[in-house]
Amino acid sequence: MSPAAAVRGRLMAAEIAEQPRVWRRVLTRAVEPIAAAAARIAAAAPRFVLFAARGSSANAALYAKYLVEVVHGLPAGLVSPSATTVYGARPQLRDVLYVAVSQSGSSPDLVRCVEAARRQGALTLTVTNNPASALAGAAEMHVDMLAGPERSVAATKSYTAELLVLYLLFDRLRGGDGQHATPLPDVADRVLAGEVDAVAHRYRFAQRLITTGRGYSYATAREAALKLMETCYLSAQAFSGADLLHGPLATVDTQVPVLAVVPEGVAGRAMLPVLSRLAERRADIVGVGAGPIPDQLATRITLPGGIPQELSPLLEILPLQQLALQLAIARGGDPDKPRGLHKVTATL
Amino acid sequence: MSPAAAVRGRLMAAEIAEQPRVWRRVLTRAVEPIAAAAARIAAAAPRFVLFAARGSSANAALYAKYLVEVVHGLPAGLVSPSATTVYGARPQLRDVLYVAVSQSGSSPDLVRCVEAARRQGALTLTVTNNPASALAGAAEMHVDMLAGPERSVAATKSYTAELLVLYLLFDRLRGGDGQHATPLPDVADRVLAGEVDAVAHRYRFAQRLITTGRGYSYATAREAALKLMETCYLSAQAFSGADLLHGPLATVDTQVPVLAVVPEGVAGRAMLPVLSRLAERRADIVGVGAGPIPDQLATRITLPGGIPQELSPLLEILPLQQLALQLAIARGGDPDKPRGLHKVTATL
Repeated sequence: MSPAAAVRGRLMAAEIAEQPRVWRRVLTRAVEPIAAAAARIAAAAPRFVLFAARGSSANAALYAKYLVEVVHGLPAGLVSPSATTVYGARPQLRDVLYVAVSQSGSSPDLVRCVEAARRQGALTLTVTNNPASALAGAAEMHVDMLAGPERSVAATKSYTAELLVLYLLFDRLRGGDGQHATPLPDVADRVLAGEVDAVAHRYRFAQRLITTGRGYSYATAREAALKLMETCYLSAQAFSGADLLHGPLATVDTQVPVLAVVPEGVAGRAMLPVLSRLAERRADIVGVGAGPIPDQLATRITLPGGIPQELSPLLEILPLQQLALQLAIARGGDPDKPRGLHKVTATL
Repeated sequence: MSPAAAVRGRLMAAEIAEQPRVWRRVLTRAVEPIAAAAARIAAAAPRFVLFAARGSSANAALYAKYLVEVVHGLPAGLVSPSATTVYGARPQLRDVLYVAVSQSGSSPDLVRCVEAARRQGALTLTVTNNPASALAGAAEMHVDMLAGPERSVAATKSYTAELLVLYLLFDRLRGGDGQHATPLPDVADRVLAGEVDAVAHRYRFAQRLITTGRGYSYATAREAALKLMETCYLSAQAFSGADLLHGPLATVDTQVPVLAVVPEGVAGRAMLPVLSRLAERRADIVGVGAGPIPDQLATRITLPGGIPQELSPLLEILPLQQLALQLAIARGGDPDKPRGLHKVTATL
């Protein structure tokens, strides 16, 4: 790497590397506030869960939506903030747990959504990286994601901190003590020691890319696509494995590479028919994960196995963050300062 | 148009043109079954609405989610079928109205989702184009979208029939009689007499494209992107106007055209800051709709004004379906038979 390249992406590289330390902090210092929030939620016994978020935080919310449906056994939805902020919708929200997730805690639309939800009877919780933010103050409960200042425009450590906080919250609500997450920081250190140079070189001149995954790993596919859009300016499109087959498969040919997230367990097995259909279209597939990826179908970025399926998204995104960083630098960009973006995006 | 081109896309062209007739049929023959379903729903007084759908039907469901939140005043969510079919989630669904939407009514994952939802206590409704389908039989209530056989792989008339059925249902639930929709078939005839040749020529060699809209019109942006993916093999990415600013804006430059849906009313006004940010990035913008699109910012496909904002998506998609058809033919494809796709997609 040239000296100039080493400077470009410096912040993003440091924040990617910092993730195991952030997770250790969350696993110690966030446990108490999460337990307190869980106790209050359990006492309220909500029957529906709604999530409000934008950007990377919306991908963390999508992950949590699966957690709520699968682990917690409640129906859940991702709100469209514009229903509130543009149309002035005032839905009846009694018995609803309303969770807003944001690194900065300062986007005005989310603040207005939480205020409106609270007035409409929801129990409100925010997860932010700034306890002094407007969003943190707007809700009845707040959990600090403890990621420390994030200065790269492309969110990395705040995304995985959000995943971990949301996992610990819903694990606690089902009576868990978060112990399955304890080994993750050490595993992450090993994953981050790996390298993705070959894939970064492969995509040097790609203009379009598809990412795909199912279930919890669909959140990984979405977040990977967002990182590649923000830092590499690729048209990176994420589809759940099933949605990909309902139309977008037609866009795939030998010139549109596919990043497929294939974890161990049921979600990885459910990707096998998708990989077969992609192979019929002679797609260039890179498989990411610990799951069953047939050698003849894909190049692979292998991850350690034996992680509970709900936690695999924390590890899956790590090499994909590294890929976005390296590819952006290889393409001559600066992933710390993507064109046209600012660190805090204020939408109404 | 050459004779060969007239044959390619023949089915899709006929089905696009048929839409006003389909709507007239829905506005007469579907009124009674919709009123019956609405009465049963009103009696059950659900407190939360979930939608299950794939492909174009998922875009119609997204439209209906805004309707529920804004017009009906209930929280709503789009389910991830994999939570049920892959992970075996069994959420508690008492007081939930569960609506599955599908042209064919035959995708096994949706059938399983509706069966599971019914067992879990939800009131279930399906909207399909085939009353004899497995999905129609799986739910307590069924509404036939009356679109007639749809033979082009790219759904067109079934999409707008779904929008209209869902509008009439939730309008009925708020005490309306559907009268605002009565003029739409005649307006649609006029819209379909317009032409989009200039835009089709403009995109002849585009490889990437972004569509954007807010609120109800975000569904239009998503459906337009899906049509362009299916028929033209473009990487067409849809973002809500706000989500576009949270990251994906970085991918926009002079080589990535943007189709922006700008209706009259609040959702159109909310697009103005988005158009300004796109203009700063010197994007090539085509604005679609009756809303306030500054001349210096965009070429435009103008639609008739004076339509209630909840109904504008029915008209907005018409020129975009025509665009997908013409562009596909211009690029040498056959939109009736997109590569790699079949009319009925069965996902698990």
